[in-house]
Amino acid sequence: MTDFLSTSIKYYLLHATKGKATASLDKIEVKAQAAESKKASKAQTPQAPAPEDQDEDQDQFGRNQKELLELCKRRFFYRQSSDIYGGVAGFYTYGPPGCAVKNNIISLWRQTFVISEHLLEIEDSCIMQHSVLKASGHVDRFNDFMVKDVKDESKFFRADKLLEEVMEAKLQTPGITEAQRHEYTTVRNQADAFSQKEMWEMFQKYEIKSPETGNDLSEPYEFNLMFPTPIGPGGYLQGYLRPETAQGIFLNYKYCLEQNSNRLPFGVAQVGRSFRNEIAPRAGLTRQREFTQAEIEYFVNPKQKDHPKFGLVESTVLTLFHADAQLSAQDPVKMTVGEAVRSGLINNETLGYFIVKTWQFLVSIGLKKEYIRFRQHLPTEMAHYACDCWDAEIFGSYGWLECVGIADRSAFDLTAHANAAKCDLQYKESLEKPFEREILVLTKKSGVEIMKAFKKDGKMVKEFVEAQPQEELECIAKQLDSSGDAEVQIDGKAFTLTKGLAVFERKKEKVTVNAFTPGVIEPSFGIDRIFAMLLEHVYSARPKEDQDDKQTRGVLSFAAASAPYKCVILPLDQRIARDKRYLQMLDSFQRELCEQGLSFTSDESNATIGRRYARNDELGVPFAVTFDFETMEDSSVTLRERDTMWQIRLQLSLLGELLRCLCKGSESWQSAFQRFPHKKTSNEEFRKD
Amino acid sequence: MTDFLSTSIKYYLLHATKGKATASLDKIEVKAQAAESKKASKAQTPQAPAPEDQDEDQDQFGRNQKELLELCKRRFFYRQSSDIYGGVAGFYTYGPPGCAVKNNIISLWRQTFVISEHLLEIEDSCIMQHSVLKASGHVDRFNDFMVKDVKDESKFFRADKLLEEVMEAKLQTPGITEAQRHEYTTVRNQADAFSQKEMWEMFQKYEIKSPETGNDLSEPYEFNLMFPTPIGPGGYLQGYLRPETAQGIFLNYKYCLEQNSNRLPFGVAQVGRSFRNEIAPRAGLTRQREFTQAEIEYFVNPKQKDHPKFGLVESTVLTLFHADAQLSAQDPVKMTVGEAVRSGLINNETLGYFIVKTWQFLVSIGLKKEYIRFRQHLPTEMAHYACDCWDAEIFGSYGWLECVGIADRSAFDLTAHANAAKCDLQYKESLEKPFEREILVLTKKSGVEIMKAFKKDGKMVKEFVEAQPQEELECIAKQLDSSGDAEVQIDGKAFTLTKGLAVFERKKEKVTVNAFTPGVIEPSFGIDRIFAMLLEHVYSARPKEDQDDKQTRGVLSFAAASAPYKCVILPLDQRIARDKRYLQMLDSFQRELCEQGLSFTSDESNATIGRRYARNDELGVPFAVTFDFETMEDSSVTLRERDTMWQIRLQLSLLGELLRCLCKGSESWQSAFQRFPHKKTSNEEFRKD
Repeated sequence: MTDFLSTSIKYYLLHATKGKATASLDKIEVKAQAAESKKASKAQTPQAPAPEDQDEDQDQFGRNQKELLELCKRRFFYRQSSDIYGGVAGFYTYGPPGCAVKNNIISLWRQTFVISEHLLEIEDSCIMQHSVLKASGHVDRFNDFMVKDVKDESKFFRADKLLEEVMEAKLQTPGITEAQRHEYTTVRNQADAFSQKEMWEMFQKYEIKSPETGNDLSEPYEFNLMFPTPIGPGGYLQGYLRPETAQGIFLNYKYCLEQNSNRLPFGVAQVGRSFRNEIAPRAGLTRQREFTQAEIEYFVNPKQKDHPKFGLVESTVLTLFHADAQLSAQDPVKMTVGEAVRSGLINNETLGYFIVKTWQFLVSIGLKKEYIRFRQHLPTEMAHYACDCWDAEIFGSYGWLECVGIADRSAFDLTAHANAAKCDLQYKESLEKPFEREILVLTKKSGVEIMKAFKKDGKMVKEFVEAQPQEELECIAKQLDSSGDAEVQIDGKAFTLTKGLAVFERKKEKVTVNAFTPGVIEPSFGIDRIFAMLLEHVYSARPKEDQDDKQTRGVLSFAAASAPYKCVILPLDQRIARDKRYLQMLDSFQRELCEQGLSFTSDESNATIGRRYARNDELGVPFAVTFDFETMEDSSVTLRERDTMWQIRLQLSLLGELLRCLCKGSESWQSAFQRFPHKKTSNEEFRKD
Repeated sequence: MTDFLSTSIKYYLLHATKGKATASLDKIEVKAQAAESKKASKAQTPQAPAPEDQDEDQDQFGRNQKELLELCKRRFFYRQSSDIYGGVAGFYTYGPPGCAVKNNIISLWRQTFVISEHLLEIEDSCIMQHSVLKASGHVDRFNDFMVKDVKDESKFFRADKLLEEVMEAKLQTPGITEAQRHEYTTVRNQADAFSQKEMWEMFQKYEIKSPETGNDLSEPYEFNLMFPTPIGPGGYLQGYLRPETAQGIFLNYKYCLEQNSNRLPFGVAQVGRSFRNEIAPRAGLTRQREFTQAEIEYFVNPKQKDHPKFGLVESTVLTLFHADAQLSAQDPVKMTVGEAVRSGLINNETLGYFIVKTWQFLVSIGLKKEYIRFRQHLPTEMAHYACDCWDAEIFGSYGWLECVGIADRSAFDLTAHANAAKCDLQYKESLEKPFEREILVLTKKSGVEIMKAFKKDGKMVKEFVEAQPQEELECIAKQLDSSGDAEVQIDGKAFTLTKGLAVFERKKEKVTVNAFTPGVIEPSFGIDRIFAMLLEHVYSARPKEDQDDKQTRGVLSFAAASAPYKCVILPLDQRIARDKRYLQMLDSFQRELCEQGLSFTSDESNATIGRRYARNDELGVPFAVTFDFETMEDSSVTLRERDTMWQIRLQLSLLGELLRCLCKGSESWQSAFQRFPHKKTSNEEFRKD
């Protein structure tokens, strides 16, 4: 039985992040060796005080979230897919402003990684065949435990989530003892780490029944999270929707290496949809059944993980929540990445480089620095093949949420595919100084004898023996020496070699090539989670005008680069909107914006100008251009900035270039405000200081 | 039996395009009323002379295609997905240059349509639930006919394709009579229009057997082309991968209308993957099982299909292959779109406007004007609800290939979803001049009586009667008058109204709102087909240097906007590549390119500079920048243009801005060539005219 006296690591994480639907680690890593890792994790005993101010911040995010969700639905940033049909859990549709923001995030990601880091971007298919996902481990290990109502099979539950809920309910029961509180808390926090057997024991111990019917539940069983689909009309070729975009990169490593003139290191990127058939999707955009990933596999010589551009980033200070700190209940630390790599906290320069690039990217789209941290995976959390892994966690109403994983996955995936597809994915590096070594080989004569001895299988047996690695040949030779014969298995058939038949000799071989399977550093971005967190970070409500004011005036203060539209065009009223001069000026101004690559929208409705400003503040449009009666006379327009609500007055002919500079960041709003006649409230007159 | 004396319309199309895998119309339209259309089409008798020069052009494309395919694979523009596992038919992976070109095409599409036309772009899910695709008609009608080998069920064939192949083989038999030739040709060209019964008759008549085994074949049966996948762990919710992106737009019409301040007309766009489980995918990228669509639904008042910007495009001259010309074996005509709309050839201005915008888009990405035409659907090809439809066809090795469909689909889809989802998708327009009309209503007293009479169902019956449309109420009233009672069905239950119970009166009603379901114009782009045709149009091989020259020097002359990289950076040799000064200059130059948004690549391999120029010509990179020993001294570099192979010499500090202008088109290469010291071959010295 499990030891309930020790609290788990997850307890610490959960407590520290004060959320239920929160830091639960994503399945970015296949649950390889999950059983071992899970058991080990239970032995740890971290403590868990949550910083007070973090609690307050999260409460603020929680309060905002309700308004924000209402805003997102009303302005169609996103909503449940096929909503007119009642929707399906886990699927969302991005509406116009949401789609634009998401596209901007992806476009900035391409700029930061693909273009600036010279990555090779590919686009693979969403449907993948069985053999690929069998090799990657997803067919066998990409599972969650489920339980079913034994009398109503349409009722099923994710076992760990149901167990958590039952414990949560017990914790709310008045008058429980401290020992009970401790026990229930521990079980709740360990729920997703139990083995099948342990899970079933918990369900029996607490006599957990089907929630609505009270019927008995089945034993927990594994449910594969991939969406299956048959390929072709015969239905004989099993396909799945990819559970991650990374596998498509490994499949094409070989061809990308060719395009990179057969040189290491190099990175390959892919952006696209991934699909996971979650048993009980919830928490909005952050756990969808269909979601967008942006992944990079950066292939390196496993012995050379330094990065040529590390020097450019090493002085960057980041908040690092390293494994030791988590285990000893310390706070995250702030330190430079250079220090972290030199001290061995971060395994290598390439990993460190991508951690900084990730941070730069997240900040560039408008996330708040103080709410970004990097949490190292505990040794027990990592897949057995990974040597270090850091998650970029972003703070919001869900607590600290994993949004990016940056892992050193070693050579696991390439090796798995090379074996399964029987193709050589080794990197061959010409040695500057070739050297000689002694190797064991079958004698020529013995080869001929073997060919004769096994008749029609002869050639196959000979080639099989010749292709064995050195260690294997040494074993065979040793066994022949000691017992006189040795058996080899070829495609399930056994062949017995005898001492007289298989004769080996030692030869000198010149080694000119160093062959190895590249290691890989994998930065993996959950675009929808980043999108959801960005909305939380940029949302605020304007102060109420007086006590009776019931209106919530939401503002999304997007950075220009991620804003859905860079400006909104507003005719002062319907008289302007119908004026021929307006239409002419509008046409040429719109052309100019298009040429500058600045997206825009317009609002020609007959709402008051103040109401329309407020509407576009909700959309997060940074600038509003108003055409009024003066514009018709002297071609001057008013430009209003969203966050300050200040206005300037300038000639329309100057506006395109000014907007380009403001959006690009080469001129600040403060500076533009000084340069042109301006005012801070609508009631003032424009004036030049 | 089918009348073999008349040739079909498809014969004409096929003959005119001289391809087999070609003009076969895509299933962009659900095969609504397919049976009727197909039958009708057989009655037509067009003739079919193919222009001589078109044959030659197609032969040239055909010859190039082999080299082009080799280039595309070698340089990884694209290749079969999971190729290291042997691949799966119908799935492709875009490699780095292909992915970049495809992204550029999509980005130019967004610029041309979403930004310039103020469309609302959304992003819906790929997995859709059964009820949505049932309503759209895809569950019932999105089928192809299949036949199976009766003794080996792993062998199956698309019935029409197999029939075509059998006829093709018969046509190749020496010594067939003219009557036979005519018969086989006709059957071949009608193959995809046969009903299940007719298809089976053909298979029996020609005693068609399973190709490899010679076994008998099953009767043809329908195979649905959607990929099914279960949603959620219960497997009770049937899902499908969307067969087109359009449906996601219809589902969100209502919410997009709200964002457009409830005003018509407006357009909604979506770019993304669609999935069709083709029985026998072939013809490379042009018929994939997973492909990228970019679709627009432009919602209009069905009585106001004029377009405010039509005046800007009406003088555009296009090649139009209208239905009458097809039916009377005439050539396509060149005419202005204004003329075509005024003469009624193109149904309305909005359709005409999007035809021109489509043409502008295709030309802007680099397709050749002379190889783009617009073919009108024959009345028999169109879905019953469509009122006009034009395909943008692009000429290449497949003949004329449909790449974009621009259809007026009327209100079919919105009406279908409104009925299925039981939600109101009507557009309500406030009338400027409200009017009065007489309507029939249940008297207040009668309402109360009905409530009492039907007890617990009373409220439901009363509300049901009150909600009936006027025509229905008139029927009920008439029946009550004539027979004394009338039955109404509510959710499958019958209720009998009697004359005394249901009493109607006529009242005046003020009508202030005009309600209607919007019509829709749908431009639908097949991005992968456009990509494939673009490669064919921009490919050429440089002339051989002498007779013995076996090397093929392929060049992809992409427009800068669609080129995978805008420039390649080349150090003259390894000495330069390792020079610190080079690395410094490179770093700041790359930063500048990034800021300008110009993508670039570099080739630091030790191949000769000529070899490296050639390699990048293959990739279609328009400009090459060479750093040499002089660069180390005076910071001047050589800029080479891909198509002319001419070179200019200029200061590195001027290059970023020059490249921006050259790529944007604001300066021509000819002009830059004049402005700077230049040479036309490598052996010359740079000189200033």
